[in-house]
Order: sequence, then structure tokens, then C-alpha cells
Amino acid sequence: MPSRYLSFRCSVPWLLLLLQTLFLIRSFFGVPGADDIYSPSNFYSEFQDVNHMVIFGFGFFLMVLRRYGFSSTGFNFLLIVLGVQCSVLVEDCLVFLRAQQNEIGLKSLAKALVSMTAVVISTGAVLGKANPVQLIVMTVVELFFFYVSRCINRTFLQVPEHLALMHVHLFGAYFGLAVTSRFPEAPPGLDKSRSSPKSELFSMLGTVFVWVFWPSFNSILAVSKRKAVLNTYLALAVSAVAAFMLSALTSKDGKFRMTHIHSAVLAGGVAVSYTAHSIQHPWIAMILGLLGAVITILGSHCLQRCFNRALKLQDISGVHFTFGLPAVLGAVAAVVLCVVEKGIAKQWNDLSSLGYLIFVDVGAFCQTICTALITGLITGLILNIKLLKAVHVSKYFDDQFYWEFPHLSVGF
Amino acid sequence: MPSRYLSFRCSVPWLLLLLQTLFLIRSFFGVPGADDIYSPSNFYSEFQDVNHMVIFGFGFFLMVLRRYGFSSTGFNFLLIVLGVQCSVLVEDCLVFLRAQQNEIGLKSLAKALVSMTAVVISTGAVLGKANPVQLIVMTVVELFFFYVSRCINRTFLQVPEHLALMHVHLFGAYFGLAVTSRFPEAPPGLDKSRSSPKSELFSMLGTVFVWVFWPSFNSILAVSKRKAVLNTYLALAVSAVAAFMLSALTSKDGKFRMTHIHSAVLAGGVAVSYTAHSIQHPWIAMILGLLGAVITILGSHCLQRCFNRALKLQDISGVHFTFGLPAVLGAVAAVVLCVVEKGIAKQWNDLSSLGYLIFVDVGAFCQTICTALITGLITGLILNIKLLKAVHVSKYFDDQFYWEFPHLSVGF
Amino acid sequence: MPSRYLSFRCSVPWLLLLLQTLFLIRSFFGVPGADDIYSPSNFYSEFQDVNHMVIFGFGFFLMVLRRYGFSSTGFNFLLIVLGVQCSVLVEDCLVFLRAQQNEIGLKSLAKALVSMTAVVISTGAVLGKANPVQLIVMTVVELFFFYVSRCINRTFLQVPEHLALMHVHLFGAYFGLAVTSRFPEAPPGLDKSRSSPKSELFSMLGTVFVWVFWPSFNSILAVSKRKAVLNTYLALAVSAVAAFMLSALTSKDGKFRMTHIHSAVLAGGVAVSYTAHSIQHPWIAMILGLLGAVITILGSHCLQRCFNRALKLQDISGVHFTFGLPAVLGAVAAVVLCVVEKGIAKQWNDLSSLGYLIFVDVGAFCQTICTALITGLITGLILNIKLLKAVHVSKYFDDQFYWEFPHLSVGF
Repeated sequence: MPSRYLSFRCSVPWLLLLLQTLFLIRSFFGVPGADDIYSPSNFYSEFQDVNHMVIFGFGFFLMVLRRYGFSSTGFNFLLIVLGVQCSVLVEDCLVFLRAQQNEIGLKSLAKALVSMTAVVISTGAVLGKANPVQLIVMTVVELFFFYVSRCINRTFLQVPEHLALMHVHLFGAYFGLAVTSRFPEAPPGLDKSRSSPKSELFSMLGTVFVWVFWPSFNSILAVSKRKAVLNTYLALAVSAVAAFMLSALTSKDGKFRMTHIHSAVLAGGVAVSYTAHSIQHPWIAMILGLLGAVITILGSHCLQRCFNRALKLQDISGVHFTFGLPAVLGAVAAVVLCVVEKGIAKQWNDLSSLGYLIFVDVGAFCQTICTALITGLITGLILNIKLLKAVHVSKYFDDQFYWEFPHLSVGF
Repeated sequence: MPSRYLSFRCSVPWLLLLLQTLFLIRSFFGVPGADDIYSPSNFYSEFQDVNHMVIFGFGFFLMVLRRYGFSSTGFNFLLIVLGVQCSVLVEDCLVFLRAQQNEIGLKSLAKALVSMTAVVISTGAVLGKANPVQLIVMTVVELFFFYVSRCINRTFLQVPEHLALMHVHLFGAYFGLAVTSRFPEAPPGLDKSRSSPKSELFSMLGTVFVWVFWPSFNSILAVSKRKAVLNTYLALAVSAVAAFMLSALTSKDGKFRMTHIHSAVLAGGVAVSYTAHSIQHPWIAMILGLLGAVITILGSHCLQRCFNRALKLQDISGVHFTFGLPAVLGAVAAVVLCVVEKGIAKQWNDLSSLGYLIFVDVGAFCQTICTALITGLITGLILNIKLLKAVHVSKYFDDQFYWEFPHLSVGF
Repeated sequence: MPSRYLSFRCSVPWLLLLLQTLFLIRSFFGVPGADDIYSPSNFYSEFQDVNHMVIFGFGFFLMVLRRYGFSSTGFNFLLIVLGVQCSVLVEDCLVFLRAQQNEIGLKSLAKALVSMTAVVISTGAVLGKANPVQLIVMTVVELFFFYVSRCINRTFLQVPEHLALMHVHLFGAYFGLAVTSRFPEAPPGLDKSRSSPKSELFSMLGTVFVWVFWPSFNSILAVSKRKAVLNTYLALAVSAVAAFMLSALTSKDGKFRMTHIHSAVLAGGVAVSYTAHSIQHPWIAMILGLLGAVITILGSHCLQRCFNRALKLQDISGVHFTFGLPAVLGAVAAVVLCVVEKGIAKQWNDLSSLGYLIFVDVGAFCQTICTALITGLITGLILNIKLLKAVHVSKYFDDQFYWEFPHLSVGF
């Protein structure tokens, strides 16, 4: 296998070179003159927050496996710097086809960072199973499909731009699940697929970072930023309390379980992502945060016991219940809230227009899930063709397969 | 003991549920309409700093014990998300009684975060001794008493709102000391009550975070923010230099001691917290920072040898000398500076009004300390009633008592 | 040796006391009245970014040695708080001599922080070899010489103020190299001079921090901040992709090497530091980022094999190829870009003025390198006089020589 191994390694640099050249050529041709491409600077501090959250926060958030720390942070970093450029390129191409005006600048980068969250979430689902070539291909393909799904939502279902982007959790989670279903399953007793106290501590560090910056994430593209910030903060606070509460209730001996905390504290932020800018009363955001945490922790028990086992899924870092289920909850809640608000405004007279509204809104998130599942399955099949040299099951979850360890690797 | 153990664990979730329901009901009733509850957004970046500092910084700052890392960060996180909601509720109730105008929004959350610092500091004093039920009860009780103490200061002693909030270090430290005096003492040779190089490194990480964000903490509610930022930065810089200087002077062999650095680098920030917004000349802030570090390091030697031993106190993470003593210094300095400034302005003619000023200012901080000590003692007694199932001394300082460790727990 | 050891330790506090007293006296005399010394507050968020990057980011970035974690972060912290005050003092003295107007405030502190980066970089070159006394002396001397070099650039070569400050990477790297050449070499097989997976993970944590905040660093003193931010971000993104690409290409087995990633992801930020504010087309910044990463990784191979061995240099954390070479590239690129732009504007008519431009610009960076090398050699000689009690080679790279470890030091 060494020859095959070496040749697999040699493919990464050339793939990166190809992509990077593409981005360079595009930036040479596609970009307007100097002064009109820069957006106002008061946007910078929020952009910085999201940048920090996606690169640093998610990088350490994914560090759950005991022998996969370098790869978790390193590959997350690589995929984001690659994906941000790729996302700008994808958006550019499709804008070019439709002869629209295009603005590049911090706002465009911010959109790219938000889109990249889908890839980060999907990466979580195949954590430790996919090699860098597969991850890079997945990044490019997923960004393209996410852009297509957003276009459909925007064009045919009249979803506003920033809401279409907030489908990112939904798309990322179900795309990742579909991709991981095409990967061979790791043997259940594998020691490397467990976490260690140290990896969980680093993951906690990342989780707190993501938690702190989530209000910036939800508000960066929203129109009424203040509302979005406050509602997100309250939802996150409630879901963090609920996470501890439910963790103690559901686990053996009534102890807290760190993985529960990791996933459920973020559920509130995901659940209000569609509605943070429009919720009028903070208590609605708080209820959503509570429900998000409940659905995450109950989901983590039911899914891991029944659903995943039945479908032979292996959802390593639990993206289905961390991001998928709260996002579904959030989407349903957005429809309900919108209908109730419109209904009250019109005193429930114009029921047919309400019905149309429900149809369109439900259509938007069903379309996202369907597109994610179908394109995810296709991507999963593509990733496992021989050309991309999938990793053998015995090499799963191991840093040493990808990173040089010149030092004696004791004590890690 | 297993049955007692189980029943103790089952109390946490229900307590959390009760509190969270209370907060939800309150947010349903107590909150005004949508648009008037959101404060201007240029406040957001400082709010984010303080949020980050309190949740992330203090969480890792408290990670000094070798086997208590999960609990230090986890419980700190839980208490803050709980306490912030609780603080808003407490403020709300008392405002309701006095039929005042109430504003909710980022500013109200920021005040709540600042108040929570008192709880975080008190938590440091009982670190590893109190179980989650005790911590939650302590949070609620302490926030209530701190609010009462602030009200007394504001109403009877004419302390401005943002200065009354800055008594948070003083209140937190002495409340924590009084509470910890009611806990049974851990046996002195316990291995678990020590730190390890790794825990000290994480604690250093948290300390640097707290240090960097301290200027935002001191300036977030101040009127002249720029002055507050600059004075705090200079005081912090001087106290950091002094921390290294004194650590080398006082320790055996002239080596640096990490715990000295942890506590003394922050002393400057605490010492100028009352006066950062009003100091006219940077050198005064620098002198205060220097004195803060001196008092902290000398205090850490004297207190641990004489005072604590005499009173049978066990101040695990040294909150008395880290926050208590510099806060006393800061309070005294605030009185002196105020008197000197007023005295010069009036050319020392109106001595009786100066006397009254001294009386009121000294009264304010004595009242805070007394209230903290008395209510802390009462809280300590309440926390050790049988209902709250205090932890046995042999289970102190141990993560495994509160957290599931499904993995083999070697190498931590 | 114990007596010598003790006396060496006793020198640190007195040196610190001396310096701190000096800074206090200076702040007593040298500072204007209260209100005019504070700069506008919208500058604060960027200042905070740079502060965080320099103290937290570089502190953990330097944590590459397996047994030098406390010293890396601790001494970095000490040197920065000391150096920032020292830098303000140095600037003050020289301003006083020329009877100029002097402004103190956040801007002055920001300049001091940027200058301190030179010291941080030089510290990286002597990491683990220099004792605290030597580091403190080096800080003071280097800040003075860097100020002199900046003055020459500004006065005789008409380099604008913020560009003169950006020579900080160039100066820091070559000064550090010259200093380290005067230190005795550590034996090659020393286990302590290696990294461990844990130290590399912490170093990755610091690197990501530095990466995220680099756009703030490059834009904090620039006039057109938006351009500087965007160009730096793009250059950093490209150099991060190139870092992974080249690491896989150049290392054995095609695996990634963590040290490559650490140094090359930052190369883009260094390479555009002179031109970030003036580059009109993002693709130029991206090309510079790519070249920066290439030069860093090729440099790391060539330098370590040939150059360093020939000159008997030991560049522990690789500052020559991490900061030195990309800075040279950036300086050359700045000259080329400036000449091309001016040339196009004047249609290549006025060749003599272009020649003068090249002469001045090349002169500026040659002057910086020469000054750095010469003053670095002198400083290296001064640091190794008997008075400063250089550490013996066998005590290199060891925390236990400087820090108390009361705990059993197993498992670190």
C-alpha cells in the first residue's frame, strides 16, 4: 500500500494548486476597480467576530476525537480559507451568467464565511473518515449545491437573501448525513473514535467561543441587528441552562455529560437563526431556545439508538441533533410565527393567502432538506470512487496518517 | 450513600427548570413592546468583550485545580447564563415595587454580566467544595443581596449607578470568604487540591483573556469611556510588571510562581475600577496598579500563613488577595482622590463638607463589605443545610463526582 | 553554582523596579492634561484586536518547545507590558529632544504595541536560550534601536510614519538572528529543544489567533483601512492554502508538517504589510500571499540545511523564514508596485525620478536590515557579558529553571 499511499498524498497539493490558480485568475478578471469594492468599516468588527467564530471556534469545537486534534483544527482551517475563496468564485460565476451587478468586499466575504458553515457542519459528520482530497472535493461541490439551493429559494420561493443563507445549518447537517451514509462504517469498539478528557476540554473551549460569537453570526446579514443580537443571546442563554438540566436528567447517575453540553448549548442559536431579526417578544426566542435544547438532547438519545443504527449511519460528532434537528425546529417555528403574525394582522380573514404563505415557507425548507439529501448522496458516491483513494477503515480517526510526528508521540 | 447521591443529582434539573420557568414567565409579562427595548448598536462590541471575558476568561481562569477542569469551565458557564437571566429578573422585581421606568436590552444584559462577576468571584472561593445545587442557590441569593447592597448605596449614600456596580469585586470576594468559612475544611495534604502544570497553563490562558478585556469591563458603564480605557490599561500594565517583580522577590530561589502571576496581573484592573473614569493623570492610575500588585502578593503570603489559618478559612483560588484586597485599596484610593480633588478646587476651605464626603464614601464601601460578610455567613449556613446535600470532604475537587467519564480517564 | 544562580535571580526584580520607576517618573512629568490625551473611541475595537493578538496570540504562538510553555507565554506577557511602556518613553524622549508635539493616548499605545512586535519576533529567535534579565535588556535596547532606525527612515528617506512602523517584521527578524548568533549553540540531540504534540496544539491555537487578528494589525495605522483589511485577508487566505499545499509537497511521505503550517499561514500577512493599504487590485495581494508562503517553506528547507549550519545559527522558532524572508519579499514588492504605478501614471517618461524613487525605497529597507544586523550583533555581545549571567547550555529550553513547580511535574 505505500505506493498507493504516496500517490494519494501527492494529489492534495496539485488539487490545491489548481483551485488556487482558478481563484487567482478569477480575481484578476472578475473584480471591479479599487474604490467601489470596499464596504463601510463599521461592519468590520462583526465580520471579525464571525471570522473568529468559524475559524477558531469551529476548529476547536470539532476536536472531539482523542487522536484527531491536529486534523480537526488544521483541516477546518484549510477548508475555510479555501472555501471562502471558492464561495466568492461560485457566487461570481452564477452572477455573471445572470448579468447582475456584483459587489465584492467585506460583505461578500461575510456571506462566504456564513456559507462555509454548511461545509464545516458536514465535515463534522465525516470527521476522521474523509481524507483531505475528499474534504476539498466535498467543499467545492457542497458550496456549489448550496448556492443552487439558495438560488431556488430566492427565485422561486421569494425567500429574502439573508434568510436563504440561514438555511446553512439545515443544508450542512443533512448534506453531511447523506455523505457519511456512503462511507464504510468504523468497527464499533474502536478506541480512536472515543474522546479523551483533554480533547473534550479543547472542544469545550471551542464551544464557548462559538457560543459567545453566535449573536454576531445571526445578526451579521440581518436588517434589524439589535433585535437579532438580543433574541439570539436570550435563546442561547436559555438553551445553555436547558442543556445542563436535561443532561443531568437523561444521563446515568444524573451526572452531566460533556457531549450533551457541547451540542445543546448551541441549539438555541440554531433554532432562532431564521427568526432572530423578526421576533417581537424576547420570551418567544427564549421558548425556542428551550425547545432547541430539548430536541437536541432527546434527539441525541433516540437517533443514536434507533435511527442511526437502522440506517447504518455513523454521525461522529452528532451534527444531526446538534444542527439538523434545531434547524428543522427553527424553520417550523418561523412558519408558525409568520402565519400567526400575518393572521392577527389581517384578523384571520384572508385564509387562502395564509395557506399560500404556509405552502411557500414549508416548501422552502423542504426543498433545502431534499436538495441536501439528494446532492449529499451523489457527493458521497463521488467521494468514494477509486480516484480519490478513500481511507481504509483501520486508518480512520488518526492524525498520524496525515501529519508528521517527528517527536516521540507519547503523552498525547 | 448511592441513594442519597442519586437524589442529590435529581435536584439539579428540577431547580434549573423552576428557575428557567420563572424567567420565562417574567419575560412574558414584564417586557415592554418591541422597538423600544433595544439599545444602540455601537455598544455591542464592548458588550461582546465583557461577555467573552466573563464566560470564557473567568471559566478558564478558575481552572486551577488539577482534576476540576470540566467543572470549573462548565459550572462557570451554567451559573452565568442562569445568573444573567436571574439578575435581570431581580432588577425587574425591585423596579416594579418602586414603579420605576425599566429598560431592557443590551445595557440591561451588560449590567447583569457585571453583577455576575460577584458570583464568579465567590465561586472561586468555594471552588471544588460546593455542589451544583449549592452553587445555583448561592447565585440567586448573592445576586439578590448584591442588588440590595447596591440599592442602599444608591439611595442612601448617593453613589452613582455605575460606581455602585463596581463594588462587585468587593462584594464578591467577601461574600465568597464568608460562605467558604461555613464549609468543612479539606484535609491539607489532599493531592486533588493542587494544580498541575497543565491546569496552570489553561488558567494562564484564561488570565490573559481576562487581562485583555478588562479595559472594556471598566469602561462599559462609564461616562467617559476613553479615560476609563486608558487608565485601566496603564494600571494593568504596571501591575503585570510588578507581579513578575514581586513574584521573583518573594518566592524561594527567586523563581517565578504562576499563581502569583495569575492573581497579581489583574490587581491593577480591580484597583482602578472605581476611579478609572475620573483619574486625570495617567501616573495616578499607574501608581494604583503598582500598589494593587504589591498588596496582592504580600497579601497572598500573609493571609495564607496567618489570617486564613487563624480563621480556619480555605480560600482555594485566592479570591481574598486577588479581588478583595485590591478592591479595598481601590475604594480607599477613590475616597482620597475625591477628597484631594474637591479640596484643591475649594482651596481646603469647606472642611466640614469634605468630612461629610469622606463619611459618605467610606460608608459606602464599609456597607458593601459588611453586607457581603453578613449575608455571606447566612448564605453559607443555608447552603449547608441537609436539604442541599453538601459534598463530603473526600469528594471535594473532583470532576468525576459531577461528570460522566465514559473514556478511560488516564493521562488527564 | 547555586550562589551565582540566586544572585542572577535577584537581578530581575530590581531591573524591573528600576524600569517601572522610570516609566512612572516619565508619566508624571511628560504627560499633558487630561482631556486632550484621549483619542476617539471608535479606534478602540481595533486597538483591542492588536492587543489581543500581540499578548495572547504571540504568547501561544511561541509555545513550540515541549518544556517551555510557562516561559513562552509568561515572558512574552512580561516583555510586552514592559515594552509598551518603554516604547512610549523612548518615543517621548526623542520627541522631547526635537521639541515636537506629542500625543499620548490609545494611538500612542497602539504604535507601542506594533513596535513591540519586533521584540516578540526577536524573542522567538533566542527562545529558551536567554534568561529574563537578558530578555528585558534586549527589549529596551531593541526598542531604542528600532526607534532610531524609524527616525532615519522617516527623516532622511521620507518614509511615511505608518510604513516605517511596518518595517517591524524585517527589523525584528534580523535583529533576533544577529543576537542569537552570539549565543552558544545548544547540542543538536537535545530532547528539550523539540516540540510535543501538545505544545504544537497550543502553538496552533496561538497561530489561529494571530491569523484572525492580522488584518487589524495591518490596518490599525493605515489611512485607507478598508483596503488594508481586505487585501490582508485575501493574502492571508492564499498563503494559508499555499502553506498546506507546499507542506505536503516538501515533507517526507507527503504528510503535513505542523511547523510549516504555523510559519507559512502568516507569511501572506507579513508580505503585504507594506502595501496592504495601497494595492488597487486584490489579485496582487493574493499573488503576494502565495509568494510569501512559497518563500517561507522553501526558505525553511534551504536555511535550516545550508545557511544556518554554515553560520552556526540556531533559529529555534524559525523567525528568519517566518518573518524575515516574507518581509524582504514584501519590501521588494512594495518598491516594484510603487515604481510600476508611478511609471504608468507618467507613461515611463521621467525615468530619472523613477530611479531616485527606487534608490530611496531600496535604501529604506536596506538601512533597516543593516541597522538590525549591526545593532543586533552589538546587543548579542552585550547580552553575553558576565554581568547578565547567561544561562548554561544544559539549562536551555527549560521551564523549571525559571518557574516554581510545587506540584509533581509528571505528565506535562
